[in-house]
Amino acid sequence: MEIKNYEQELLSVDPIEYFYKVRNRSIEICKPLQVEDYIPQPVPFISPAKWHLAHTSWFFETFILKPYLQGYCAFHEDFGFLFNSYYNNVGKRLFRANRGNITRPGVVEVYDYRAHVDQGIRQLLLHSTAPAVLNLLELGLQHEQQHQELMLTDIKYTLGHNPTFPVYDPAAQFHPREDGKPGYLSLEEGLYEIGHQGNGFCFDNELGKHKVYLPSFQIANQLVTNGEYLSFMEAGGYSDFNLWLDEGWSWLNENKVEAPLYWHKMEGKWFHYTLAGLKEVDPNTVLTHINYYEASAFAQWAGKRLPTEFEWEVASKHLEWGKRWEWTNSAYLAYPGFEKAPGAVGEYNGKFMVNQMVLRGASSATSEGHSRATYRNFFHAHHRWQFTGLRLAQ
Amino acid sequence: MEIKNYEQELLSVDPIEYFYKVRNRSIEICKPLQVEDYIPQPVPFISPAKWHLAHTSWFFETFILKPYLQGYCAFHEDFGFLFNSYYNNVGKRLFRANRGNITRPGVVEVYDYRAHVDQGIRQLLLHSTAPAVLNLLELGLQHEQQHQELMLTDIKYTLGHNPTFPVYDPAAQFHPREDGKPGYLSLEEGLYEIGHQGNGFCFDNELGKHKVYLPSFQIANQLVTNGEYLSFMEAGGYSDFNLWLDEGWSWLNENKVEAPLYWHKMEGKWFHYTLAGLKEVDPNTVLTHINYYEASAFAQWAGKRLPTEFEWEVASKHLEWGKRWEWTNSAYLAYPGFEKAPGAVGEYNGKFMVNQMVLRGASSATSEGHSRATYRNFFHAHHRWQFTGLRLAQ
Amino acid sequence: MEIKNYEQELLSVDPIEYFYKVRNRSIEICKPLQVEDYIPQPVPFISPAKWHLAHTSWFFETFILKPYLQGYCAFHEDFGFLFNSYYNNVGKRLFRANRGNITRPGVVEVYDYRAHVDQGIRQLLLHSTAPAVLNLLELGLQHEQQHQELMLTDIKYTLGHNPTFPVYDPAAQFHPREDGKPGYLSLEEGLYEIGHQGNGFCFDNELGKHKVYLPSFQIANQLVTNGEYLSFMEAGGYSDFNLWLDEGWSWLNENKVEAPLYWHKMEGKWFHYTLAGLKEVDPNTVLTHINYYEASAFAQWAGKRLPTEFEWEVASKHLEWGKRWEWTNSAYLAYPGFEKAPGAVGEYNGKFMVNQMVLRGASSATSEGHSRATYRNFFHAHHRWQFTGLRLAQ
Amino acid sequence: MEIKNYEQELLSVDPIEYFYKVRNRSIEICKPLQVEDYIPQPVPFISPAKWHLAHTSWFFETFILKPYLQGYCAFHEDFGFLFNSYYNNVGKRLFRANRGNITRPGVVEVYDYRAHVDQGIRQLLLHSTAPAVLNLLELGLQHEQQHQELMLTDIKYTLGHNPTFPVYDPAAQFHPREDGKPGYLSLEEGLYEIGHQGNGFCFDNELGKHKVYLPSFQIANQLVTNGEYLSFMEAGGYSDFNLWLDEGWSWLNENKVEAPLYWHKMEGKWFHYTLAGLKEVDPNTVLTHINYYEASAFAQWAGKRLPTEFEWEVASKHLEWGKRWEWTNSAYLAYPGFEKAPGAVGEYNGKFMVNQMVLRGASSATSEGHSRATYRNFFHAHHRWQFTGLRLAQ
Repeated sequence: MEIKNYEQELLSVDPIEYFYKVRNRSIEICKPLQVEDYIPQPVPFISPAKWHLAHTSWFFETFILKPYLQGYCAFHEDFGFLFNSYYNNVGKRLFRANRGNITRPGVVEVYDYRAHVDQGIRQLLLHSTAPAVLNLLELGLQHEQQHQELMLTDIKYTLGHNPTFPVYDPAAQFHPREDGKPGYLSLEEGLYEIGHQGNGFCFDNELGKHKVYLPSFQIANQLVTNGEYLSFMEAGGYSDFNLWLDEGWSWLNENKVEAPLYWHKMEGKWFHYTLAGLKEVDPNTVLTHINYYEASAFAQWAGKRLPTEFEWEVASKHLEWGKRWEWTNSAYLAYPGFEKAPGAVGEYNGKFMVNQMVLRGASSATSEGHSRATYRNFFHAHHRWQFTGLRLAQ
Repeated sequence: MEIKNYEQELLSVDPIEYFYKVRNRSIEICKPLQVEDYIPQPVPFISPAKWHLAHTSWFFETFILKPYLQGYCAFHEDFGFLFNSYYNNVGKRLFRANRGNITRPGVVEVYDYRAHVDQGIRQLLLHSTAPAVLNLLELGLQHEQQHQELMLTDIKYTLGHNPTFPVYDPAAQFHPREDGKPGYLSLEEGLYEIGHQGNGFCFDNELGKHKVYLPSFQIANQLVTNGEYLSFMEAGGYSDFNLWLDEGWSWLNENKVEAPLYWHKMEGKWFHYTLAGLKEVDPNTVLTHINYYEASAFAQWAGKRLPTEFEWEVASKHLEWGKRWEWTNSAYLAYPGFEKAPGAVGEYNGKFMVNQMVLRGASSATSEGHSRATYRNFFHAHHRWQFTGLRLAQ
Repeated sequence: MEIKNYEQELLSVDPIEYFYKVRNRSIEICKPLQVEDYIPQPVPFISPAKWHLAHTSWFFETFILKPYLQGYCAFHEDFGFLFNSYYNNVGKRLFRANRGNITRPGVVEVYDYRAHVDQGIRQLLLHSTAPAVLNLLELGLQHEQQHQELMLTDIKYTLGHNPTFPVYDPAAQFHPREDGKPGYLSLEEGLYEIGHQGNGFCFDNELGKHKVYLPSFQIANQLVTNGEYLSFMEAGGYSDFNLWLDEGWSWLNENKVEAPLYWHKMEGKWFHYTLAGLKEVDPNTVLTHINYYEASAFAQWAGKRLPTEFEWEVASKHLEWGKRWEWTNSAYLAYPGFEKAPGAVGEYNGKFMVNQMVLRGASSATSEGHSRATYRNFFHAHHRWQFTGLRLAQ
Repeated sequence: MEIKNYEQELLSVDPIEYFYKVRNRSIEICKPLQVEDYIPQPVPFISPAKWHLAHTSWFFETFILKPYLQGYCAFHEDFGFLFNSYYNNVGKRLFRANRGNITRPGVVEVYDYRAHVDQGIRQLLLHSTAPAVLNLLELGLQHEQQHQELMLTDIKYTLGHNPTFPVYDPAAQFHPREDGKPGYLSLEEGLYEIGHQGNGFCFDNELGKHKVYLPSFQIANQLVTNGEYLSFMEAGGYSDFNLWLDEGWSWLNENKVEAPLYWHKMEGKWFHYTLAGLKEVDPNTVLTHINYYEASAFAQWAGKRLPTEFEWEVASKHLEWGKRWEWTNSAYLAYPGFEKAPGAVGEYNGKFMVNQMVLRGASSATSEGHSRATYRNFFHAHHRWQFTGLRLAQ
């Protein structure tokens, strides 16, 4: 990954203040939790909150403090093994599916670990604003922000699969409305520039600014709502194989799926688990927790299609976006000229470029300052525990 | 299950005092735990400590308080679903492998639940010493004692699979020695009486006193020690298929087993995880954490065999026993005349009578007063997380 | 395994004639097959007919011809690998579940292999009647007879899972009737002798004649019929968990079982696939293709139990038996004094002595001369593709 | 799928002659087989030769004879169930993994079925050259040609996993050489037209001729050879995780892969199974039987990349191609304006457009007349039993 030079930007704010602001949001997210809630990993693709808190700290310790802070003393020799996620270059790591079985270090010790790392970073920044350090700091904070959204969706998964549906925060607001007048925006055919430009931070997968030719297309000005999706469901969408991709139809049948994740039919009405508890489904709010198969089937049923990630990026300046991650019809692949950075930070994005679909936009759970029109999020087609929705194109 | 009359016995002690004494040991066992340790279920056959604490309380609530304590108010309507183990007669229950994913109720609420149930039992016993109540009380307390040993072995499993090997209790003493002079005890052929007699408590599977004819046999006066087992290992015991049952050989190869559970070879020496932490293996202490396949292979290698459960019971009055659950060469099947009780308590033992082997004796983790020569413990042949060992016969 | 001396017996018949008579029955069984039918292995526990034909020949080649026939030239060097079943002492072998994927050698070549081996045995027997040879010959023929019954049941499995239900032999007669007057036979308590005695052939697991004490018991004079089992089914037997062993209830739910194997409900009537094709279930014929779980549940529903293998053996002289393998309530374990023979033939029986149940009797598919009252057949509790039925006791 | 009008083209040849020519090649492919070889399905993604022969006939019967040939009598009512592959619109079908267990109809009957269908088509074509019929005929023949290549690779899989490595055809020639001078071809940036044009047959996924902008690029004039791949292997390519996609690294480790499919190291030399038998690997022939993960790792190691399918199509007119299917760096997705045909034939391509990668070119096993520069073949990234290779780009 090409580490860009962000030092000017970071120096324009106070790096220490910026660092604490981002780091503290992780702690804010965990405030409503009981100690017990930090532990389980009900399915391999989610991680315990305790693990997120430790792993994001391990990132700063491993990539910044150990190489750059003279005399830094690692908090605990085992944490490298316990809290490495997938960086093969940084040694052995815990088998992913076992994260929920590791009770020690406990939650208090993980907070101590965070404080120890924060203190180290503070000390380093007091004495050094070397570009290499600041660039890695920015990367670490962006990484932390990615995990903040994952923490929210992972917490939701754990609590939402508890038969008692515990409330995370009665005031949680993660379900925006679509109140405007629905319609389609027309864009002309032409050669467009795609990819990140400018001095702000971006990930390596956004680089490689390049031209893409697009035929003329139309894209919806709003996201699909619960009400529209209910029409699809009521029209038998989940039982008409003609609407589904072959793998989607298998997924649906193996898992006996009949509705988005977290939806429960009770006494004839649809409810869904939200971070504010179990609520009746509101037809005017934005549909979420569907996977690519469901997005694709809905579009097929509606006689439309999903936009490509390039169409989305070109249209984005004319759209209101950010209410929800939007499945596109683009596979997650390298841009022309993509190059991985040498070493561990190069494992960040490139090695996942197969069998995943691109999502564009952002959600109500995305950390402030962590969204931009060129951002390429990606998930496997069957996943739906993120705040994922869709926008139609034609 | 025939509910025997224990009321005289219980009345000879103070039932309330007896009840609290047994119940409090469960709490004692959990004293060294952090909140985090109560939660995980790393494999389906173990249960979280929190679940054990709640489930044993649920047993008293369901079988005693709800039917017998007038005006009893259930602590929480969902707990029946969450903390039923396998009693189909008492309604739906949580899928077993999900016990570790349920963070709510939290640990504090589970202790409140225990206190609520204890208070109910106390209130009931102040006013009623009806035989039906006292008999169910005794059953509930025996059930609690069974779970106490499981709690210890389940806690050991969870902590022992943490890469940092946390200490449960530095003073824990679960590994007795065999210091006597090894030898064999000879018993004459003849007709022997097997099964429980007398007025004390026993489970339904011990009833049906009956005659069994035994040829003359010899049985070791001591359990097999770590040192003896090390000789088997060093002689290539784990790589000679002639010593193993066919299913044992498959188990060994699929799991790449080379030593008892919790054993780790480090720098040429064998260590094992104990509740007091990682310790070097002491050749003079009793071997434990082996399964039936390993017990059988060791006996084959030694040119001996395992005793049957009948031989064991007959010889027991001449043996020092109780250091370790002992695999026998008997399958867990009904005694002649075995009958299940009607209803839920009848699900206690009879429905497990296939594909399990009988263990006799007791271990250093068995609750006081919970062992007797007629006790029939049983586990699947591949399990080894209990404190299981063996005694040879010929 | 103690190889007993059968030479006198074999010499009293013509060994060559006896050999060909047994061997030819295997070929008779395959007469109705098309080449295609010899190949598939739809589930790992069944074997293709081609494999049975080759494996039984391999047994004679490996244990008799190679060691005893001077100058014997092995038919093909790869056949040891391809057609060894489970004898670890005789080298590597094909992974069991792959037997159906090996198209070469073809059927014709396997018949050539048989002829080659037969010719070798004939040549050997013309010149040698050494006891060691005759004893291994007898073992090889008994082994062949075991595979003959397996061939029939495996062929039935393959054809019976073809959606077109092909007929094996329109004249096949494998479903005997129970026409007598049902009743129970009473036997006195006492010490009985169990196990094989006399000079005839038996397997090592029947040896160790020993005394067993039995309380008085009653045993049915007839096997359970389809009609009786239909009553159980109509009474909701497959949906009442109180009747089932815990593992049986899991098995039933995971496999959505509602009837014996090969039964199909069509337009309100029960049909079953037989080797003579799809036939309506006859209530007066003997129930078959049930597993131990089903046998146990039926007995529970009837208020009876299964006999132990000892009760069965003692009662057998008063019973008409042989219509069907009968599940007993005995686990397959060693008799007192059981010893394995050294080397490969010692792998025959002993290593399977865990997690299997004993069946006594014989079926309409058992080869002539291959049944006796002391014979201990054994299968896992969930299997039901053999001709298995049950007899009640109380 | 838009059914294009091919009638002119078909009428320019003799449709009956053309039909028999294509159909007969399927029979030619099976000539070297023994009956046994038609049966097994060693892994779910391959199909038995017998199934291919029947399924391609079923296609003509279902989509042409039943709707268009008056008085046509279906060969057998069960064949619709047995030989439907994945067309949900045409009713229930056999579970895919069971194709190898169905012995009846036998091979002879399947050839009778082919003859019956061929006769029907002949009869129809004698009287009708309606465009609808001719277009479906063309589709059916293209479909047959696709299955012809699958038959060859599936036969290779079955024979190549037989421990005796049987020879299919000693004269088989499926491993072309690369004898030219290696180098790179340069192409200018620009807007290019992609997709099928003209009157010839193409599949629906090639339609939607559209413009694509490509930056300038270079593409190799030759395919990667065995010798080049051996260099990668000898340089430790299979053990350096930095070269691999994350899913590729998991695949490699789970399957313990160290070489392309069919490669075996024997006494220090690399051999590979070919349809002509086991042969030493020739460094000058084209590499084959690698999957997308391996292609991607090799390109990474070589400091190059795979071309996109658009680059390939644009460059193809300057390249010699057809020796081997070539993995591209493009995911299999819809072209702009893609539309599925209504009904069953619309299930042909569109429903597979997720989680597969595009391959371009053709192989030595591709049927004559079945290759064109716009052809989009597609397989999952982990598959390597097709004749798959790669070409580098930069």
